[in-house]
Amino acid sequence: MIRVDEGRLLADLRALAQFGKVDTGVHRLAFSPEDLDARAFLVQRFAEAGLDAHIDSTGSVFGRSPSSGPAVLIGSHTDSVPRGGWLDGALGVIYGLEIARVVRENSTTQDLAVDVASFQDEEGTFFACLGSKVFCGDVHVEDVLEATNKNGERLGAVLNRIGILGNSTARLEPGRYRAYLEAHIEQGPRLEAESSRIGVVTGIVGIRRFLISFQGQADHAGTTPMSMRKDAGGALLELACAIQRAFRRLAGESTVWNFGNVRFEPGAANVVPARAELTVEFRDLADARLAAIEQELRRLVADQAGRVAVAIAVRDTATIHPVQLDLTLGDHIAAAAEARGVSYMRMPSGAGHDAMVLARHVPSAMLFVPSVGGRSHDVGEDTREGDIVLGCQVLADAVCRILGR
Amino acid sequence: MIRVDEGRLLADLRALAQFGKVDTGVHRLAFSPEDLDARAFLVQRFAEAGLDAHIDSTGSVFGRSPSSGPAVLIGSHTDSVPRGGWLDGALGVIYGLEIARVVRENSTTQDLAVDVASFQDEEGTFFACLGSKVFCGDVHVEDVLEATNKNGERLGAVLNRIGILGNSTARLEPGRYRAYLEAHIEQGPRLEAESSRIGVVTGIVGIRRFLISFQGQADHAGTTPMSMRKDAGGALLELACAIQRAFRRLAGESTVWNFGNVRFEPGAANVVPARAELTVEFRDLADARLAAIEQELRRLVADQAGRVAVAIAVRDTATIHPVQLDLTLGDHIAAAAEARGVSYMRMPSGAGHDAMVLARHVPSAMLFVPSVGGRSHDVGEDTREGDIVLGCQVLADAVCRILGR
Repeated sequence: MIRVDEGRLLADLRALAQFGKVDTGVHRLAFSPEDLDARAFLVQRFAEAGLDAHIDSTGSVFGRSPSSGPAVLIGSHTDSVPRGGWLDGALGVIYGLEIARVVRENSTTQDLAVDVASFQDEEGTFFACLGSKVFCGDVHVEDVLEATNKNGERLGAVLNRIGILGNSTARLEPGRYRAYLEAHIEQGPRLEAESSRIGVVTGIVGIRRFLISFQGQADHAGTTPMSMRKDAGGALLELACAIQRAFRRLAGESTVWNFGNVRFEPGAANVVPARAELTVEFRDLADARLAAIEQELRRLVADQAGRVAVAIAVRDTATIHPVQLDLTLGDHIAAAAEARGVSYMRMPSGAGHDAMVLARHVPSAMLFVPSVGGRSHDVGEDTREGDIVLGCQVLADAVCRILGR
Repeated sequence: MIRVDEGRLLADLRALAQFGKVDTGVHRLAFSPEDLDARAFLVQRFAEAGLDAHIDSTGSVFGRSPSSGPAVLIGSHTDSVPRGGWLDGALGVIYGLEIARVVRENSTTQDLAVDVASFQDEEGTFFACLGSKVFCGDVHVEDVLEATNKNGERLGAVLNRIGILGNSTARLEPGRYRAYLEAHIEQGPRLEAESSRIGVVTGIVGIRRFLISFQGQADHAGTTPMSMRKDAGGALLELACAIQRAFRRLAGESTVWNFGNVRFEPGAANVVPARAELTVEFRDLADARLAAIEQELRRLVADQAGRVAVAIAVRDTATIHPVQLDLTLGDHIAAAAEARGVSYMRMPSGAGHDAMVLARHVPSAMLFVPSVGGRSHDVGEDTREGDIVLGCQVLADAVCRILGR
């Protein structure tokens, strides 16, 4: 069996974390100088590993093995959210690099084809999963040049400025891949809570997100009888509780939901709220369950709208369909963990990943390693070194199983 | 029977509304140049009415009848909220002026003692009901010189600048008054809804106001299982609904309540709220009911705090005790309305007034006139001219009844 080089793996992760380092994390937004420096570093490391490496026209770094395949593609992203963690995305890319190196160094595996990718802008500074979507042909760069970041900069202007639009575009090569594999930190507390060191991801949950607005009338809260009010805030509280009860009733094992924001206007103690807004989302692996929950939510809104003197509007702000990952590939990861005597659990991913894009085109699997305290998207994000190394070893073993060694 | 001078009454109200006029309302904050100009105008009008008039050390305008009494004091305030209505407060002061004039002009009533006051800062630009509280001896000016307005100006500095601290201070004269009478716009929709033209106010509701805060933990709303969350927002929604049900169960005829504001932090769709705040108040004429509702609210908080992984704190932000107005004086107003064949209703005041202060020292009564559309504290506030005139006439008649004519 091949054995990953623990020191080299950790050293490369630490080296990558220097680009955009802030406190114990990184601030490495897609296309920022730090991000581009990190990508230049990756091209060099990929090349040293014997891969044919370049930055493509979207900023993704792609390293192709000279072996003919069948291949596996191992990838993730190296851009971060503002003040993000050092491993989110980076882990999966450096795993790919290390596995490409270690298979090449071992005489029994040196003919295996392991390609590696760091897809651009998974975090959506300009356009979420830009790199993987272009790679899969779901999106063409020319169609998203008008996308802007929070400062109002256009993606097209940024691409022009850094001069990569003329680079070749890495594309999913038909027939080459037996699997797309993405390792990632869990970004949640479940593995730690269950003392499990490997997560075998069953799928990526879909999301439905709504903004429900209530339009009533501001009135003096002392002088207006309860029966004469058009209380937008009261209507919101009542509906939110009804929705909460419906969620509990309709939820499956993997369903989660969140009332992320509530706003009242004018927001004074002695004024009946004229306007109120509720942000609600729910996630599940099964699209049918998401649809059933949405239907009930809309029924509750219609029911309440018929009973109160407040206008209620539902705006659909995001719909992301769930993705099932490949069961056979998951079994290979599970078998690799078992062979090493490591505890693992099957679990859905509650957050989105590039694998969500790839899985519609190539059999795909994901492996999670535990997040200390479940933290992510924060400089305090971390994973124990032993877990980092173990995750890479299990993924390397799974690659051998998938490619028949 | 005496008859108020309709043209003179309306002309004086319109003249007063020129001070700080904005759109159809007034912006006449206590101690602003517009407010002080309005007070100088009142001193002149009071003097023309034969009253001994001056601006006192707090900015209240007081006009004392030369008659020895027993007297009635008719008052209200002429300061306004920002962009307030033209009648809020002003109506009661000009009623006093007109009634002082009309009793003096009529041979059968010219010996009656009618004093008139425009108390300073009822609206609390610096210190709510400053004028009436100093008048009654509840507060001494020296004790509130550190009070500030929204711009951070100190009351002491303002009083020094306008140079009235050396003026005499109008004081409640022991034994002089048979009644304090305050007429006011309703500031609510009930008279209009009931087609009633006069409100005989039974009392002024007490208020209890609380800020309930919830401290949980921000977590990823996709990756954190429901059972592992410390969801401040979810806890708030559940508690608010439980409180709402309790209010409905415990409410009496005059109980009103309001959830005036809700805030979630960080307030993102995909982040479990770490912190949430709920502003709640309730009002009633009976202190015992307010106490019972507060007890239940605190019980619900304690109950929920024992069940959820969120820290809940209740902060008492305002407690105002209810005030019962004088029944006999109310009967005089009702009898005056009846004698004119006018529909009236008995009702509590859901908002605070100077009468709340006076009623603890002198038998007090209030008369309401209808507010068009129930609007107040807004430039759109208005009352039909016929209702304005009728209210003054009924109050004048009541004064004669109270003083035995």
